Amino acid sequence: MEEKKIPYKIYLSEDEMPKAWYNVRADMTNKPAPLLDGKTMQPITAEELGKVFCEELVQQELDDTTAWFEIPEEIRNFYKMYRPSPLVRAYCLEEKLQTPAHIYYKFEGNNTSGSHKLNSAIAQAYYAKRQGLKGVTTETGAGQWGTALSMACAYLGLDCNVYMVRCSYEQKPFRREVMRTYGAHVTPSPSDTTAVGRKILEQFPGTSGSLGCAISEAVEAATSKEGYRYVLGSVLSQVLLHQTIIGLETQTALRKYDIKPDMIIGCAGGGSNVGGLFAPFAGEMLRGEANYQLIAVEPVSCPSLSRGVYRYDYCDTGAICPLQKMYTLGNGFIPAASHSGGLRYHGMSSIVSQLYDDGLIEARSVAQTDVFAAAQEFAKCEGILPAPESSHAIRVAMDEAIKCRETGEAKTIVFGLTGTGYFDMMAYGKHNDGAMTDYVPTDEELQRGFDSIPKFPGNE
Amino acid sequence: MEEKKIPYKIYLSEDEMPKAWYNVRADMTNKPAPLLDGKTMQPITAEELGKVFCEELVQQELDDTTAWFEIPEEIRNFYKMYRPSPLVRAYCLEEKLQTPAHIYYKFEGNNTSGSHKLNSAIAQAYYAKRQGLKGVTTETGAGQWGTALSMACAYLGLDCNVYMVRCSYEQKPFRREVMRTYGAHVTPSPSDTTAVGRKILEQFPGTSGSLGCAISEAVEAATSKEGYRYVLGSVLSQVLLHQTIIGLETQTALRKYDIKPDMIIGCAGGGSNVGGLFAPFAGEMLRGEANYQLIAVEPVSCPSLSRGVYRYDYCDTGAICPLQKMYTLGNGFIPAASHSGGLRYHGMSSIVSQLYDDGLIEARSVAQTDVFAAAQEFAKCEGILPAPESSHAIRVAMDEAIKCRETGEAKTIVFGLTGTGYFDMMAYGKHNDGAMTDYVPTDEELQRGFDSIPKFPGNE
Repeated sequence: MEEKKIPYKIYLSEDEMPKAWYNVRADMTNKPAPLLDGKTMQPITAEELGKVFCEELVQQELDDTTAWFEIPEEIRNFYKMYRPSPLVRAYCLEEKLQTPAHIYYKFEGNNTSGSHKLNSAIAQAYYAKRQGLKGVTTETGAGQWGTALSMACAYLGLDCNVYMVRCSYEQKPFRREVMRTYGAHVTPSPSDTTAVGRKILEQFPGTSGSLGCAISEAVEAATSKEGYRYVLGSVLSQVLLHQTIIGLETQTALRKYDIKPDMIIGCAGGGSNVGGLFAPFAGEMLRGEANYQLIAVEPVSCPSLSRGVYRYDYCDTGAICPLQKMYTLGNGFIPAASHSGGLRYHGMSSIVSQLYDDGLIEARSVAQTDVFAAAQEFAKCEGILPAPESSHAIRVAMDEAIKCRETGEAKTIVFGLTGTGYFDMMAYGKHNDGAMTDYVPTDEELQRGFDSIPKFPGNE
Repeated sequence: MEEKKIPYKIYLSEDEMPKAWYNVRADMTNKPAPLLDGKTMQPITAEELGKVFCEELVQQELDDTTAWFEIPEEIRNFYKMYRPSPLVRAYCLEEKLQTPAHIYYKFEGNNTSGSHKLNSAIAQAYYAKRQGLKGVTTETGAGQWGTALSMACAYLGLDCNVYMVRCSYEQKPFRREVMRTYGAHVTPSPSDTTAVGRKILEQFPGTSGSLGCAISEAVEAATSKEGYRYVLGSVLSQVLLHQTIIGLETQTALRKYDIKPDMIIGCAGGGSNVGGLFAPFAGEMLRGEANYQLIAVEPVSCPSLSRGVYRYDYCDTGAICPLQKMYTLGNGFIPAASHSGGLRYHGMSSIVSQLYDDGLIEARSVAQTDVFAAAQEFAKCEGILPAPESSHAIRVAMDEAIKCRETGEAKTIVFGLTGTGYFDMMAYGKHNDGAMTDYVPTDEELQRGFDSIPKFPGNE
């Protein structure tokens, strides 16, 4: 049989786009442990969760048996504006590396939010709208999630309130203005608009804020106003569910050209993008239909999977969210300042954690100096300037392709390129100046993080 | 016959991509006037031009009879990394405007340079490489052209020297770092690396530079070093030739779905993008095969077509480049500081000028406050945050669609969306704050500009 000619970019037609998200938990024998209520230490109820999150999203969060959730038509129409995203054959990178490996990447950066975040933002905003809510609240650090949510809310005519960590609000005016252009109300956090914000400002006048504090303000704003709910951009199972659009499109595109990947690589922060990319392939493995090497890549400075422990822990530093069983460095772990803000998270999606614990996923950790070197090499031959977060996956894909050059194996490598680095140019500047450094946490620092994990029977 | 369902985005397959650029001058009865040598006031020779530009590009510049120039395979392969660009059906905008019009836009922003500039950058870099040159020099203001050229040179392994206007170098560090990441040498202009730069620095210590000065430095750097040539991002006929890839893809995509446009709209700065979009359609008109309304949109602050005169003038403020017959406000015209740097040019492509003079193209001028209002409305429903320059075309497309709502006509409107506004967020911020203003040049100001046009027999 003649091999089909693979184009530089594989685009699906609109008809080939997924019509349902895939809930991998349905195929898992070992289900992720249930969320616990922080007060009662009992599995949290839909009613409790529904005070903070939209009803439909609560159902998605708690349901670990339904394999497919239909994507509502309005969301599919929104997806059609910027999806399907291309699955790109990295011909130029292969040539540059002189590797017999075939390299593909699924590129999620071709939308104004600059990343995959939009996939879940539109879904969460849609369910809020359908519930008849007036608006949603959220927090944002670097601003990618806030941007995505602002875009989704603008499209649906929903009020969007973003609490942006004050130092980012001041240092990243570009992101702030993108959100404002989309009509969002952006408040530097801590602010005097919430009780928790006022308290922090009183205790620490002039503080530049933190993500933990911004979460607390966003949750308070959502729960104290009629017609509002809180939304979150990663970690939760509902977010991973929406992000399976990435993996499903990848799977369809590969099948269209009879391509069988050997390994699939993604960067891991809270785990929703890498989980969404892996899910359909993990599903095939769980059902015994295929076998793949699934590699989650994290920074050496924040190695939740590689060096974390599998425990119940708070999802947020402020300990106001429920407890989730996950690989964690401890909610009190403070990652070194790195240029991959999106990967500076102490924990990991409960689904990714369980799949990792069961040996379906492996983990690698890489240093940011090596990551930026890979990013630059990739940019020069593939044209796309990648986000530092995404470049963690590039680094490992390149390492694997170089191994193939040495062994002569023609492996098929697929990786997720989650976003662009347009708003990370100061970090690239540091790389260009040769001034970037690495940091590996010491065992003592990790221990201090582990000490912050709540202790109760069965969680030690 | 059943109407074909139009998807949100029309992508061509690789096989459908153009294999040649279209030289519209071959079909023009009234050819653009030849470039004049500034010293002799005679038509410039290939030999003279070849001291500054690459040989092959000189041929393309001077040839007004060959209709098609084959696109070399290496350029086509580069194009495949980020092209074909989508022709998007603006379903959401149509719905928002409640118009019976069908609106399409050709989106050129899905590449790291963020604009159409890459289409010509790769071509110019390729011919430099093929001539055996070591590198190229250029100037950049806001940085889009410099970014595109850096990308092209990185891909081909060519040295890239960019003279960046000093105030942009300091105020737009993001763009500077993108170029450096792609390996370009970026020098703030004026600099002490050229004689002209040293002279200006001596005369005006601490000056923040100008585009005219940066051009002078780039040309000196190219002509005084062995193995270098100068390249330019707009205005010239060779650049417009490369940009016809935009119009050709648009034409193919429209034909694929039997769509017959009534009007085609583009923003006009130096004229290469709008000329590239219009060329194949103007060709149909010139050959008597079809008729379209072609609308070039410019800022009221810099109305080269609407209020300019058709004369021989210098392409650059420094009067070191040859003279071109074009619609011009005079090389001494200083446009008011606006947020569309790419449209702040006193002249216009000679091809666009001649087609305008012959009545094939019409011109509109719009105010930037109206442009940003359109940009924001577009961003909210279509998801893409457009560049201010591109938004000039959006403004007129929306105005025409609104007219259709009033008359009930279902016109088919196509416009060029040349790029994204990620690096223009301070301008959007001003718009968000309601602090943006407009400026219309007075007749006296225009007259001062006209007075700077060189006077000689037949040019008054």
